Amino acid sequence: MANPQVLIVMGSDSDLPIMEEGAKVLAEFGVSCEMRISSAHRCPRKTAALAAGAAGRGIKVIIAGAGMAAHLAGVIAAETTLPIIGVPIGGGSLNGVDALYAMVQMPAGIPVATMAIGKAGAKNAALFAIQMLALHDAGLAAALVSHREKMAHEVEAKDQALQASRS
Amino acid sequence: MANPQVLIVMGSDSDLPIMEEGAKVLAEFGVSCEMRISSAHRCPRKTAALAAGAAGRGIKVIIAGAGMAAHLAGVIAAETTLPIIGVPIGGGSLNGVDALYAMVQMPAGIPVATMAIGKAGAKNAALFAIQMLALHDAGLAAALVSHREKMAHEVEAKDQALQASRS
Amino acid sequence: MANPQVLIVMGSDSDLPIMEEGAKVLAEFGVSCEMRISSAHRCPRKTAALAAGAAGRGIKVIIAGAGMAAHLAGVIAAETTLPIIGVPIGGGSLNGVDALYAMVQMPAGIPVATMAIGKAGAKNAALFAIQMLALHDAGLAAALVSHREKMAHEVEAKDQALQASRS
Amino acid sequence: MANPQVLIVMGSDSDLPIMEEGAKVLAEFGVSCEMRISSAHRCPRKTAALAAGAAGRGIKVIIAGAGMAAHLAGVIAAETTLPIIGVPIGGGSLNGVDALYAMVQMPAGIPVATMAIGKAGAKNAALFAIQMLALHDAGLAAALVSHREKMAHEVEAKDQALQASRS
Amino acid sequence: MANPQVLIVMGSDSDLPIMEEGAKVLAEFGVSCEMRISSAHRCPRKTAALAAGAAGRGIKVIIAGAGMAAHLAGVIAAETTLPIIGVPIGGGSLNGVDALYAMVQMPAGIPVATMAIGKAGAKNAALFAIQMLALHDAGLAAALVSHREKMAHEVEAKDQALQASRS
Amino acid sequence: MANPQVLIVMGSDSDLPIMEEGAKVLAEFGVSCEMRISSAHRCPRKTAALAAGAAGRGIKVIIAGAGMAAHLAGVIAAETTLPIIGVPIGGGSLNGVDALYAMVQMPAGIPVATMAIGKAGAKNAALFAIQMLALHDAGLAAALVSHREKMAHEVEAKDQALQASRS
Amino acid sequence: MANPQVLIVMGSDSDLPIMEEGAKVLAEFGVSCEMRISSAHRCPRKTAALAAGAAGRGIKVIIAGAGMAAHLAGVIAAETTLPIIGVPIGGGSLNGVDALYAMVQMPAGIPVATMAIGKAGAKNAALFAIQMLALHDAGLAAALVSHREKMAHEVEAKDQALQASRS
Amino acid sequence: MANPQVLIVMGSDSDLPIMEEGAKVLAEFGVSCEMRISSAHRCPRKTAALAAGAAGRGIKVIIAGAGMAAHLAGVIAAETTLPIIGVPIGGGSLNGVDALYAMVQMPAGIPVATMAIGKAGAKNAALFAIQMLALHDAGLAAALVSHREKMAHEVEAKDQALQASRS
Repeated sequence: MANPQVLIVMGSDSDLPIMEEGAKVLAEFGVSCEMRISSAHRCPRKTAALAAGAAGRGIKVIIAGAGMAAHLAGVIAAETTLPIIGVPIGGGSLNGVDALYAMVQMPAGIPVATMAIGKAGAKNAALFAIQMLALHDAGLAAALVSHREKMAHEVEAKDQALQASRS
Repeated sequence: MANPQVLIVMGSDSDLPIMEEGAKVLAEFGVSCEMRISSAHRCPRKTAALAAGAAGRGIKVIIAGAGMAAHLAGVIAAETTLPIIGVPIGGGSLNGVDALYAMVQMPAGIPVATMAIGKAGAKNAALFAIQMLALHDAGLAAALVSHREKMAHEVEAKDQALQASRS
Repeated sequence: MANPQVLIVMGSDSDLPIMEEGAKVLAEFGVSCEMRISSAHRCPRKTAALAAGAAGRGIKVIIAGAGMAAHLAGVIAAETTLPIIGVPIGGGSLNGVDALYAMVQMPAGIPVATMAIGKAGAKNAALFAIQMLALHDAGLAAALVSHREKMAHEVEAKDQALQASRS
Repeated sequence: MANPQVLIVMGSDSDLPIMEEGAKVLAEFGVSCEMRISSAHRCPRKTAALAAGAAGRGIKVIIAGAGMAAHLAGVIAAETTLPIIGVPIGGGSLNGVDALYAMVQMPAGIPVATMAIGKAGAKNAALFAIQMLALHDAGLAAALVSHREKMAHEVEAKDQALQASRS
Repeated sequence: MANPQVLIVMGSDSDLPIMEEGAKVLAEFGVSCEMRISSAHRCPRKTAALAAGAAGRGIKVIIAGAGMAAHLAGVIAAETTLPIIGVPIGGGSLNGVDALYAMVQMPAGIPVATMAIGKAGAKNAALFAIQMLALHDAGLAAALVSHREKMAHEVEAKDQALQASRS
Repeated sequence: MANPQVLIVMGSDSDLPIMEEGAKVLAEFGVSCEMRISSAHRCPRKTAALAAGAAGRGIKVIIAGAGMAAHLAGVIAAETTLPIIGVPIGGGSLNGVDALYAMVQMPAGIPVATMAIGKAGAKNAALFAIQMLALHDAGLAAALVSHREKMAHEVEAKDQALQASRS
Repeated sequence: MANPQVLIVMGSDSDLPIMEEGAKVLAEFGVSCEMRISSAHRCPRKTAALAAGAAGRGIKVIIAGAGMAAHLAGVIAAETTLPIIGVPIGGGSLNGVDALYAMVQMPAGIPVATMAIGKAGAKNAALFAIQMLALHDAGLAAALVSHREKMAHEVEAKDQALQASRS
Repeated sequence: MANPQVLIVMGSDSDLPIMEEGAKVLAEFGVSCEMRISSAHRCPRKTAALAAGAAGRGIKVIIAGAGMAAHLAGVIAAETTLPIIGVPIGGGSLNGVDALYAMVQMPAGIPVATMAIGKAGAKNAALFAIQMLALHDAGLAAALVSHREKMAHEVEAKDQALQASRS
């Protein structure tokens, strides 16, 4: 995928079913994305290099998903000034609260923009990346407005179906 | 302040000491910002109008800080496709965990990029806004690199002072 | 359903199995109710209009059910002075604690009367609405007393069945 | 105070500074209220009698505030079909989370409408009681609308003061 | 069962599979027990009468199991000076933490001796009741010592089986 | 103090201000008590010996107070079949939730009767010990009834003082 | 297994599937280990003796796994100055948070090195034991480096497979 | 300090009052230690280099203390196979629970041996480091035994003082 604008990184292939939700959203908006597996702990230097080299390759935003003591987003944020979005992933004993706290509570100086735990968070990470890109891409901005309208119509349709079923 | 790029909104003037930490960071980077008090619950229409009209005035990013059942960021996010950054504010019985959960756990479709609870979060919200703006502002991008270097030097200086004090 | 007294709103059709428990209770008491799907985030203006117009249509009480960062009840409460009852809904990583905190911790000025997480909360929301209506409806007040007696008899019957099974 | 419409009960005189916040709100709206100390555990029969006799004396709503294993609201709710509002009170090791869970998680059948922990909750309990009474009191209904407008004006004034201080 | 020494009360028949674990332990030790369903909220007066009359019938200890906002043990404790043992029961959204806090955090004056959440707690409630009765029953005291030895032997046997399986 | 019936053990002298609240209650009831400092971790054999030898000296009940990873009550319970009451003590980062979980969640076989965190728990531990002793001491049983009446009168007096102050 | 260097102790055979994950890691590194079932509460003296005698038999490190109010690691740590590693085990109502707090919050003087809840923790306990042994075993030190490289290669392979699947 | 065996790293000089508690313990045992300030996020490469170079300089154990989203210990652990001990530091809104989860929940492969939050944890980190070094240092092993005896004597002395004060 030439010239990806968004880089999605996850710490393990077990995170793929969650993070693919974000990739799908990006694809719907026609935003090119690269999806990588790279662990903050098991291959720290590859991860650091991936982060440090991202801006040079034209990456604009990095989305990092990880579970448990989720250091991945913070470790990437430390190596680049690109905006980093974190997706905490559940599944273990603490249901993702560990990953949430390990991402959102970044100390002053190195922000990680944290989304909800799990699939909702992965989707919103992609939407948030698109919102950033849309600041200088009128087509994406219009697509976001359409997406909002589509969501509103879907809610409306479900509401009408509910009324019909109850009348 | 003509043509602010960043809008900081807070639900109450009691949140001002926290949110001013973000305004200070923006000022250090020379990023113009407007700071407003507008409650999601006590003046919902003013808040909706503020959000809906932001893009038209040239606002690029909105930072929303609130405590307790912190709906402000989500309510603003529902009215605009601009990127919204949330700062959960503590102080009450639940120490900001309530505000954190009420911000970060946004359902799929309407993202809020959530930062740490309190002052660290307010500072990082500003830095994250700058990171977004820097995607199309080479001066800001360079300033972010300098800021990182300055932080690293400060840590280095503190480390050297510690070594000196122990030798 | 002409002239509903109670409006049940939920943020998503996935909340329907929970909120229907409340609708069933209202039906048992012969209280007319309207059930709507309307999202605080995906269709904020429709939701605001639904809330703002409720009193004018004769609605007396609004029950709002939502999960995750559950803003629905608070957003509705901001648009009307009718009493609002909130039902936090679980299911995600945080099992409804996020929704509970996002509902119950409303700041001073705009109350949301919060019930238990999930089905018990939906049933109690309906009973609480009936308790309010019963303040000026002697028939409902008598029905509530009968309902209490019925519950007491059910407990008594189960206790007797247990004694019989153990003797 | 002849013919109180609202009964405020608390488990201990140490809860008085919290619960008086609710009494003040009721007084502002001209709603008569009786404030009582009665413990669910130390004087259970007095508490049960207070609850069971409330409706007969013209009480319309009961607000119960308690801390720790806060059973007071539930115990009162078990003795009357009047609507009961619960105010969890913090201060101990668990900061009111114990009281919140012990109030809001009432099982199906006996609702307790739970407010935020502490003073915000006490104020909102009073406002919620007024919202109920306003369903059949046009004067109170108008007063609630005025109160909302006043709150909105206060936010507006604080916002203007902030703008003035920054220009 | 003539002259039961221990009374087991639960708030709902859904708690029976948990509380029967306690009844089995009492049966193993030959301690007579009565098992009752009585809700603190749905039949408060029956529950109060059950508690208040227990000592007069020769009951020495009461074990109360309940879930959610588990008031049962506290409500019983308020009506008698017999020792009350509480068993928090999980199953809902909060997994029994609500029941634990609603039992263990009793205010000064009315103790509830709280056990672990669920089956382990029900078994230990029975053992604790036996420990109390054994203070004046040498046979029970000896049986407790035998029970401890049996438990130690079981652990020993499992350890030996493990060693055998690994050699 | 010859022939103490109750043994109060705490892990550290920093726990003394909490545990003395229990000793005072025992003194009010004329129940002899021995108060000891003995750590589960720093002097495990002394602690085991203290527990194992308690019954032989006429001790009937042991109250154990400890903070953080509070193993003291469980370690004592493992060495004797006397009933053990645990008092979790707060003060550290986790405010006593660590001590509560480390006491109340005892596995099946070795119960620890757990009280509230801190001073309320220490007082109730003493009252619970007295409730056990009162099963075979009519004087204590009568004293418990008087104590309940006194508590009820105190609540009544506070309620009357409140009424007087408001009339 | 003659001359084991590592002793793995667990409180119950139900913990075996978790703790075997650690034993497998030790076996991969060729580190001899003894695996024992011994409960802190049900056989305290055997457990104390196992701990106290470990150093004399050549044991260098003890790994202790337990759930609920997990005292095992602390009880062992109190009997030896060998380094003790704790593995909190979930499964009950509190999902292992109880075991985590009961292990990690050891008071000053008696450390327990605590790992993650469950299988990840059991594996890491073994790796940590190997890291300690490797301080004086060049072969183990080299094996650890190889293990790190192998993990990095596995991540790399998964990343390449992902790229291949998406191109 | 020539040839330090233990390296203490902290993320900020605000952590110094906590981490010095560990340095004092090492000094009492005559174990040489180097204390450094190096942030995982603000100077990631210096931190990685510090970790990667530690073994080559003769460091045997690294103790890392950090607060909030405490990545420091994990980042260091990723760069070396030396044993890493983590000390979570409180002080912010989440009182160190964030730091605890971000340290202890390390994924399989890269262990961090986690101690209690705050000063107790810093002291125990030092003691645990000494326990490791004592595996091959008979002098340290003897010193640990003496330290245990001293702690036991201190408890004994406090117990005797308490007995004296009460007799």
